[in-house]
Amino acid sequence: MSDRVWNFSAGPATLPERVLAEAREGIHELSGSGMSILEISHRSPAFQDVIAEAEAELRALLGIPDSYAVLFLQGGASLQFSMVAMNLLRGRTPGADYVVTGSWGAKAVSEARHEGSLRIVWSGEDEGFTRVPRPNELRITDDAAYVHFTSNETIQGVQWQSEPDTPDGVPLVCDMSSDFLSRPIEIDRYGVLFAGAQKNAGPAGVTVVALRRELLDRVPDGLPSMLDYRTQEKSKSLYNTPPTFAIYVVMLVARWLRDEIGGLGEMASRNAEKAGLLYDAIDGSGGFYRGHADPSSRSRMNVTFRLPSEDLERRFLDIAAERGLLELKGHRSVGGLRASIYNAMPLEGVRTLTELLETFRAEHT
Amino acid sequence: MSDRVWNFSAGPATLPERVLAEAREGIHELSGSGMSILEISHRSPAFQDVIAEAEAELRALLGIPDSYAVLFLQGGASLQFSMVAMNLLRGRTPGADYVVTGSWGAKAVSEARHEGSLRIVWSGEDEGFTRVPRPNELRITDDAAYVHFTSNETIQGVQWQSEPDTPDGVPLVCDMSSDFLSRPIEIDRYGVLFAGAQKNAGPAGVTVVALRRELLDRVPDGLPSMLDYRTQEKSKSLYNTPPTFAIYVVMLVARWLRDEIGGLGEMASRNAEKAGLLYDAIDGSGGFYRGHADPSSRSRMNVTFRLPSEDLERRFLDIAAERGLLELKGHRSVGGLRASIYNAMPLEGVRTLTELLETFRAEHT
Repeated sequence: MSDRVWNFSAGPATLPERVLAEAREGIHELSGSGMSILEISHRSPAFQDVIAEAEAELRALLGIPDSYAVLFLQGGASLQFSMVAMNLLRGRTPGADYVVTGSWGAKAVSEARHEGSLRIVWSGEDEGFTRVPRPNELRITDDAAYVHFTSNETIQGVQWQSEPDTPDGVPLVCDMSSDFLSRPIEIDRYGVLFAGAQKNAGPAGVTVVALRRELLDRVPDGLPSMLDYRTQEKSKSLYNTPPTFAIYVVMLVARWLRDEIGGLGEMASRNAEKAGLLYDAIDGSGGFYRGHADPSSRSRMNVTFRLPSEDLERRFLDIAAERGLLELKGHRSVGGLRASIYNAMPLEGVRTLTELLETFRAEHT
Repeated sequence: MSDRVWNFSAGPATLPERVLAEAREGIHELSGSGMSILEISHRSPAFQDVIAEAEAELRALLGIPDSYAVLFLQGGASLQFSMVAMNLLRGRTPGADYVVTGSWGAKAVSEARHEGSLRIVWSGEDEGFTRVPRPNELRITDDAAYVHFTSNETIQGVQWQSEPDTPDGVPLVCDMSSDFLSRPIEIDRYGVLFAGAQKNAGPAGVTVVALRRELLDRVPDGLPSMLDYRTQEKSKSLYNTPPTFAIYVVMLVARWLRDEIGGLGEMASRNAEKAGLLYDAIDGSGGFYRGHADPSSRSRMNVTFRLPSEDLERRFLDIAAERGLLELKGHRSVGGLRASIYNAMPLEGVRTLTELLETFRAEHT
């Protein structure tokens, strides 16, 4: 792939070249089956091996014990916003606590409101979503149904550096879409975590959910079968036809993380190094580049920043595109630029961008 | 692909070899973008072209006018069972009418019951789901919210030969998962049709919905955004990240149908020819093979039949597998054998199976 660009898209996003090559092989033929992975029955032994390996690799990477279910669902975080609330909030008093650190947290609140009562225990909206709360700003309801937070806000580039503290017995629910698999986590801190795959874990079209099984006792009857975590857990994600190919690619990505990268600790170091290069370029620019997020809450996945004017931002984007650095425009709600540097973005891509940041600044100051 | 098998799976199912080759190319690079189709942003112009072409091809094949929306959703027919009822049944009196001709129709009823009141206007359950109702057996409520039917029951192999008659003003809702794109339809007979792609239209992971836009006025407020047809219509299936690769493959399949097959009329002829070969072999076997479905309601997609004993069925499956004829075991609820012969199953594959049916019978009678 000699004409391959540097793709800084916020998701769907760049994937490891090894995974792309293996995915092509699987489309040709899945391991001696005489069929493409696109053609293979989800009830076949060959696909059972795929989904079992995908689950086992994710459990190994994240240290997920058997007391948690690992599910492969559809609909992205947007459907999980409803599904979490249908399963764990409907009919409960008191309701759930939500911590809102960006656009996705706000969307989670909108959807959950259809299902039950909730309290926004902290919101960064008035400050333009630039940071996560300090520990002393966060007062969780002692017996809340759960606390929902967004570990990394893709649009604003605001990331929790570690999990929020919660009172004993209050499950932590996390939208981990854009930093899933980017660093180790303390799994036993979580009740539910979910992630659309299309940033770090695979292609669009599958949503990974890890869920403490004991929470299934709280699920009310009468939910649509597809949206009832109990159905999905009982059927091991095979209640109906799952997105077989997307699960296959998640398996390939997880394998790559284990045996090419060496696990999430090493991945986190590389991600910190990549993000460090960009934030150093921003901080060392004498104010030419201005980061959106407060340094205490900077994302290692989505680096959001502004230039001195919108005109300069446009010029930068044009020059970047000429050099094969693509998808750097920020989300319209924040403006400016955003470099999404997920697991599969090589250091070389970030270095190329950092060099451009420096030469562009030198030419325009 | 010289070691390619004949895959009679009920879905995910065999795909055209041309489509598989093109899908591999797209995973390498999407049309000069420098990125894989798996990596490309759903907001990018390149993907806009993909989803627009997928929609345009489906509209052309099925004759869908602009008064209908065409949506690309997730969750399969199983989620549509709930979504249809949430959008068009909740809070309505009288409720909806359901015609149940097999296992999938029965599942549709179970899910819809969570959302509102309904009436089963005909069920083939007492007869073991062997046929669709005769016109004089079907009495639709004059002002029903809608009538739901399953155009082809994948498990039983029972197919409607044409749409049921409905009173003026009662929308016809159809689960078309397993015969979508297999023959021309009279689109203006339908209010809503939906189909999981993994039989005739593409890989698992995307659900195509065509919906008469005027029905959107009936949708109640308060639904989860992801499950509100209005959200999906307004955002042109891009409310959140859609299953980009699966949509890409649907586009490739639709192109193949148009410019290699020549459209749905020709496809229907070929499907009739393939099914005819198998039913002739069954009917000419002197009772050795017994079809499950009544001849009036035989499916051209899923040919279900029994042998004189379960032991012979097992022997047949073993010999078939040795010859590369796979996935012929019937669904456990019906037993026996099932040959799924969707659009992409070549005539040659069906001929090979027919020959085996004849030699096996000759050796065992």
